[in-house]
Amino acid sequence: MTNDLSPPHRMALSARIQAVQSPIIPVIGELIRANPGTISLGQGIVHYPPPGEIVSRMAEAMADPARHRYGHVTGLTPLLEALRAKLAAENGIDSEGREVVVTAGGNMAFVNAVLAIADPGDEIILQTPYYFNHEMAIRLAGCTPVLVPTDGDYQLQVEAIREAITPRTRAVVTISPNNPTGAVYEEAALRAINALCAADGLYHISDEAYEYFTYDGARHFSPGAIDGAAAHTISLYSLSKAYGMAAWRIGYMVMPGALLPAVKKIQDTILICPPVPSQLAALGALEAGAGYCRQFLAPMADVRHLVLEELSRLGPRITVPAVRGAFYAFVAVDTDLDALALARLLIEAYGVAVIPGTTFGMTEGCYLRIAYGALQRETVAEAMGRLTKGLAALVG
Amino acid sequence: MTNDLSPPHRMALSARIQAVQSPIIPVIGELIRANPGTISLGQGIVHYPPPGEIVSRMAEAMADPARHRYGHVTGLTPLLEALRAKLAAENGIDSEGREVVVTAGGNMAFVNAVLAIADPGDEIILQTPYYFNHEMAIRLAGCTPVLVPTDGDYQLQVEAIREAITPRTRAVVTISPNNPTGAVYEEAALRAINALCAADGLYHISDEAYEYFTYDGARHFSPGAIDGAAAHTISLYSLSKAYGMAAWRIGYMVMPGALLPAVKKIQDTILICPPVPSQLAALGALEAGAGYCRQFLAPMADVRHLVLEELSRLGPRITVPAVRGAFYAFVAVDTDLDALALARLLIEAYGVAVIPGTTFGMTEGCYLRIAYGALQRETVAEAMGRLTKGLAALVG
Repeated sequence: MTNDLSPPHRMALSARIQAVQSPIIPVIGELIRANPGTISLGQGIVHYPPPGEIVSRMAEAMADPARHRYGHVTGLTPLLEALRAKLAAENGIDSEGREVVVTAGGNMAFVNAVLAIADPGDEIILQTPYYFNHEMAIRLAGCTPVLVPTDGDYQLQVEAIREAITPRTRAVVTISPNNPTGAVYEEAALRAINALCAADGLYHISDEAYEYFTYDGARHFSPGAIDGAAAHTISLYSLSKAYGMAAWRIGYMVMPGALLPAVKKIQDTILICPPVPSQLAALGALEAGAGYCRQFLAPMADVRHLVLEELSRLGPRITVPAVRGAFYAFVAVDTDLDALALARLLIEAYGVAVIPGTTFGMTEGCYLRIAYGALQRETVAEAMGRLTKGLAALVG
Repeated sequence: MTNDLSPPHRMALSARIQAVQSPIIPVIGELIRANPGTISLGQGIVHYPPPGEIVSRMAEAMADPARHRYGHVTGLTPLLEALRAKLAAENGIDSEGREVVVTAGGNMAFVNAVLAIADPGDEIILQTPYYFNHEMAIRLAGCTPVLVPTDGDYQLQVEAIREAITPRTRAVVTISPNNPTGAVYEEAALRAINALCAADGLYHISDEAYEYFTYDGARHFSPGAIDGAAAHTISLYSLSKAYGMAAWRIGYMVMPGALLPAVKKIQDTILICPPVPSQLAALGALEAGAGYCRQFLAPMADVRHLVLEELSRLGPRITVPAVRGAFYAFVAVDTDLDALALARLLIEAYGVAVIPGTTFGMTEGCYLRIAYGALQRETVAEAMGRLTKGLAALVG
């Protein structure tokens, strides 16, 4: 053992970091740069800017010298109050007796939760396909992601989740509307998972970053609204998608009060406080409100329709389960090509970029994630033309 | 073992988080609020605002819709270029062949470093008194802080550090100018530590957040500038202190290129990218340059003089080693009172707040940290009057 710890070994990267997958997004980005003119259906962002007021409101508030100093570790009081009001009005979550913490983006809220509740070797249940940063965060924490496949429509498989629980399980994670599939989970299934967690003494971590993005009458449901959910439900949100303000890095979490001392320690250590200018901008965004986002939903639904129609014209080797949320389509391709190889061919020969499913944990079969939120309709139309042409030629 | 994992236990806070100390700052903050009129010598910040241009420059740049989207994981190119120029001109660090990464504050840069190089059970050497967030980050990562006392002048004890190295050691941390002591480490000692690390295959993590705050001819020295330091030195910086912009949360790190894949994974998982508006503000601050900070140094040196003079009038039970940096005095008090009890008495009976040394790892003896950067001269004078009166009465 001592031999293994001789100098060259000691300067190696930590084992924990070697267990974390390399992000695929930069790899695809590199291929895009190497193939000018490529249209990207890769980026998980919206095409619209934030409400214009946020910059000016923020600039105004920053005239107060105190606003350049550290803020409170959990966030600015007026923002926390606005978030509690939003949670009550939109999510049905009465946050009294729970704690709300502002974070530098939704990812950090997930990291806070994992570090607070799980030790190295503990298990956290993810659904596959998973959101890659969740899987990376669990490994970074030295914990084990336990992967439960969703069904053919990318919906939760409650019994399979129940069977995956072991004495080391600490939490079940659900994301609805889902990244990368776009699935909006059924209320009944989310209630079943939440009850399962309550019965087994597990946390239910509910990531709702895409809460406003639903179509065809699908309704977003917040498990934190369930009676009895307060003591074991950790709900995660982001302003990045809804308000087109990913650059500002503001998310938040609602959680049992018992977790607050832990999350304060973590956030003090990693961040000290969420960036104050971004919090002031977030306050401006919340004043604009959900209506700001909703005005873009009808055009986005139209783009979604175009994407699904284009895909439906492909043959039986391309499967697109019916989903009604977010701004993703997660396509199963019946081919012997691996997903990264297929994505590379689509960029190099057809000028269109999508994200290979392997990065979302789909190591069996070939899957592609198509993101249609970042582009204008005509650009999506052009991109989908290239994609369907490419898929028809390569695997059709 | 299975019994221990029954539901109530499973919902407990993680062991890792239970091993992390509770931040003391909020405890002192609570006492201050409960005792109105208290003057705080507790806050580790400067009294001056950032250069005025940063808000307007940032607001201007944010008119570009692309600036509201995710930025690159390691930071915006023009900011990285400005930081490389600053490192060359001011720190003597040729960053070619090294990597520069922007973070959401200096703390996050430290967390990035620890997670990248150390696994649970690994050891990282800190000097005592330590900066509490360093100790907390090491425990959060499941690693062990190995504590080496500084000498009577709060200077490095190179031989003691050498003796503390074991096969599990991964890094030696130095902070100069130091928080909480204000000590500026001797160049020779920093060179010795850096050489020791090179010889033993360890990283030297050099935290230089207070680099501009030196007095009485003391010179800041960056270990990253040493010939041969590039492959094992991780240098950490912050804009929070120098530019009075703690609220914006911008720090950065310079490190061996071999660490970049690890730090990209960590930062992608925790943060995705540093907040873009804050980065644009940071760019504005760097355009103002170090001269902006330096104009406040003469008045701060004057305040420092006042603090030291007041303390020198106390009896032999109060010891104040001579230090020449940051904006702290770390005072040893010869008393049977524990430091928190003494701090509480000073707030409640004398209306002045300082930070107890226990939070910096000084569990033997009674120490107090006095921070004089956040207040105007006349307020510091009043606070020091209260403090010396209180100390004279309580322990004099």
